[in-house]
Amino acid sequence: MTYCVGLKLDRGLVFAADTRTNAGLDNVATFKKLHVWEKRGERVLVLLSAGNLAVTQAVVSLLSEQLTSETTPGPTLFSAETMFQAARVVGSAVRSVKAIDGEALATSAENFMVSFILGGQIKGEAPRLFQVYAAGNFIEATADTPYMQIGEHKYGKPILDRVTQHDMRLGQAAKLVLLSFDSTLRSNLSVGMPIDLLLYNTDTFAADRQKRIERDDPYFSMLSEEWSERLRIAVSEIPDFEI
Amino acid sequence: MTYCVGLKLDRGLVFAADTRTNAGLDNVATFKKLHVWEKRGERVLVLLSAGNLAVTQAVVSLLSEQLTSETTPGPTLFSAETMFQAARVVGSAVRSVKAIDGEALATSAENFMVSFILGGQIKGEAPRLFQVYAAGNFIEATADTPYMQIGEHKYGKPILDRVTQHDMRLGQAAKLVLLSFDSTLRSNLSVGMPIDLLLYNTDTFAADRQKRIERDDPYFSMLSEEWSERLRIAVSEIPDFEI
Repeated sequence: MTYCVGLKLDRGLVFAADTRTNAGLDNVATFKKLHVWEKRGERVLVLLSAGNLAVTQAVVSLLSEQLTSETTPGPTLFSAETMFQAARVVGSAVRSVKAIDGEALATSAENFMVSFILGGQIKGEAPRLFQVYAAGNFIEATADTPYMQIGEHKYGKPILDRVTQHDMRLGQAAKLVLLSFDSTLRSNLSVGMPIDLLLYNTDTFAADRQKRIERDDPYFSMLSEEWSERLRIAVSEIPDFEI
Repeated sequence: MTYCVGLKLDRGLVFAADTRTNAGLDNVATFKKLHVWEKRGERVLVLLSAGNLAVTQAVVSLLSEQLTSETTPGPTLFSAETMFQAARVVGSAVRSVKAIDGEALATSAENFMVSFILGGQIKGEAPRLFQVYAAGNFIEATADTPYMQIGEHKYGKPILDRVTQHDMRLGQAAKLVLLSFDSTLRSNLSVGMPIDLLLYNTDTFAADRQKRIERDDPYFSMLSEEWSERLRIAVSEIPDFEI
């Protein structure tokens, strides 16, 4: 499993991904699930991945190879004119990998289970955020639901659901996303630190604000403790239920 | 789906169950999933059920019929001398129903999917809380994890996880359980109001504190709104994340 979140806000985008992959409980490793393609001053694209690691790595490699290959037929992540086209490029890459590996996976009783969050900005457009499915089709985040989650999404959803507001500062939204991760990490062993974070400010066309939150990160520890304490206080301040 | 919670605290037990059952999205009904057997002054037993409604109803009917039947071989919920024995009675009832219906369910591609939370107190013992599986075996709640959840448990777990304390008052714990339900109701259509609640105070041997929380319950509405507001304040008070 995995947990990844993308948020689309007035001031930009926030991305976060855990780094745990596992084949069974006794085969655990750390792999980056947050991938960035940047053409400074012109576009930034961020892809978060969940599911079968062989498949997600193949998709990411394909997307990267297309950028330098002279035989790529359609647009690439660097030549797509809009984020919608870029989402199509990712969808096509997923379909290509399925065409190559899908049948063999099926005969090994492995499912072609993958999902992606794609977000970013291409000059001429506002930032956009998509979720790409294993079939290569996708949906786009709108004002009604400005976030996308993939992987183990249930534990961390209530906090996003109640607190996310489109006019939040990115640092505030990142805090919220980390709280959502903390709830998930406490409950699901298949989601693990470190967490990769990327904050993208609208119209900067640069992916400079990236950080890996390690297990002993003092901010994350403070956040987790403060949050538990404040929840306890908040619960105690609301009148008790009486029968 | 379903969502049920049982909590074991120093002062007693708290039980809550939603009432939605559904066969597909377009066939929704209300059924009670919180069942009480009381021998006033001597024992109170509470059973929460999740899973296939035909199976859970059969188990509950069997447990009730045993109380008046003269041919019941082993102990019943009223003659069991300990809660451990009572959990065995429930487990046996599950196995009996499986023996009768299991094969037919399997041939209809239906799983024998059920789970139960059993809690209560029998004179001579402290209150105890169990989770009974579809196989009829069970586990007991201990101080390390004083709550049990069945059904759609993920959305509502983080709040229980962080705030539950063994020395809470029952009304405070009920508030916490209702918050856990609110998070779940917001995210999963298969969990629905009304919610049945039962608070059991240690050594009372009476099941008097029961209430059904309806959709328009003023306390529940207040709780949900206050909670969202306080979470927003709590998030805003913790320092923002900075890169």
